[in-house]
Amino acid sequence: MTSSSRHLYQQIADDIRAQIADGTLVAGDQLPTEAELQERYDTSRHTARTAIAHLVQEGLVISRRPRGHFVRERRPMVYRPQSEFKRKPPELDIFMTLMADDGRMAAQDIDVAIVEGSPDVRQRLQLADGELAAVRRRVRKVEGEPYNINDSYFRLSDVQGSEIMHPANVERGTNQVMDELGIGQAKCLDEIYVRMPTPDESHRLQLLPGTPVAVHIVTGFDGDERPVQCVVNVLAGDRHVIVYERIRPQAESNQ
Amino acid sequence: MTSSSRHLYQQIADDIRAQIADGTLVAGDQLPTEAELQERYDTSRHTARTAIAHLVQEGLVISRRPRGHFVRERRPMVYRPQSEFKRKPPELDIFMTLMADDGRMAAQDIDVAIVEGSPDVRQRLQLADGELAAVRRRVRKVEGEPYNINDSYFRLSDVQGSEIMHPANVERGTNQVMDELGIGQAKCLDEIYVRMPTPDESHRLQLLPGTPVAVHIVTGFDGDERPVQCVVNVLAGDRHVIVYERIRPQAESNQ
Repeated sequence: MTSSSRHLYQQIADDIRAQIADGTLVAGDQLPTEAELQERYDTSRHTARTAIAHLVQEGLVISRRPRGHFVRERRPMVYRPQSEFKRKPPELDIFMTLMADDGRMAAQDIDVAIVEGSPDVRQRLQLADGELAAVRRRVRKVEGEPYNINDSYFRLSDVQGSEIMHPANVERGTNQVMDELGIGQAKCLDEIYVRMPTPDESHRLQLLPGTPVAVHIVTGFDGDERPVQCVVNVLAGDRHVIVYERIRPQAESNQ
Repeated sequence: MTSSSRHLYQQIADDIRAQIADGTLVAGDQLPTEAELQERYDTSRHTARTAIAHLVQEGLVISRRPRGHFVRERRPMVYRPQSEFKRKPPELDIFMTLMADDGRMAAQDIDVAIVEGSPDVRQRLQLADGELAAVRRRVRKVEGEPYNINDSYFRLSDVQGSEIMHPANVERGTNQVMDELGIGQAKCLDEIYVRMPTPDESHRLQLLPGTPVAVHIVTGFDGDERPVQCVVNVLAGDRHVIVYERIRPQAESNQ
């Protein structure tokens, strides 16, 4: 590839990217075909194809063979970590409430396992050598489409024999069960990491190319600062916006 | 490529990925060369190269030609949106405080411009037709390495002629200046999006392949729910962990 043709594929990609940014092309619109780009820019099929491939890798465009390429639609779900501690209808667990807020329906598959846990989880739960964890694993879906992976780890000794070990939805919420078990959470630390998915995550979340994930790790502590829960959420990057509200302390007390 | 060779490159990538996950290979370690992989797996140079290319795209491995491929180092900075409203030494602005917390130093380049602003910004600031915004744009660096882009938008009519329009660090903090101008923030809404970078962001943040960004948009409201500031932060995904602390309301009142 010559220097000028390398420049040209970037120019084509820049032009299409700008049209998406300024709304000339909107979600769901079909892109010009390779043949059309080839003619419009007086270039090779290969250069037109390379330009489109770059936009696919950036997550701006999707391929729907044999129909062509389209501007990707984004319908991010509002994901509110703070809603966990807000009042909610007792028949809905946290995730259902989030979904209900958005007017969409959620389905969940839950399985429960007894595991060692990764170093990340063991460290956050402060597990002793040989101590095991219980994990509730879910893939949460909206209208059949997987949105996020939600794995909740507990010390096995805290939850053994309780409802938390049942592979089914807990109607009154696991936070309520934790309260009853004497391991109620007083505060949480949220950590949010951003990275590309593993092949397993790509598969479970049915991610398109150019789609990173947010990893939201929640460590819950009881009133004595003892970690009682570690939740690892893997969120499809194109399907979520994570939202927090912050109140300025002075505003509450002085204004 | 035959079906079995396609399977083999995945197997090679899986093996290396597992060694990184379990700590057999740690950050900075050199990977086996293509020739070594070729011999170990009794395969072609092309298959070995494809396996490594996949790990580069996933952001797990970096190429340092001609030396070879290495496990990528990650040194995420702790990024705490909540610290904005916490008491801090008056001589440090928010970012400097964050850096000081982590024991690293920060350098900033600030420029100020008068702009229309993107639809995203105009909508959040509720700008009227034809109304202009002032923006303070910074790329924040740690030890010379760019970490994030921080663009703070204000209504031009709110800040015209004030210190906010000076392209220099505001020692007592822009929040203090906003208070003095009568546009002090009472609360903020944080939105966090995850996506691949634009070519411009890749260039400004010197991102490696396989590195997504987090876009942290903060909309600040005064006591009358009027939006007074919109900050667009673009964070290099491999260099940040976003941290929030949440206190359970019952824990404060009932326990």
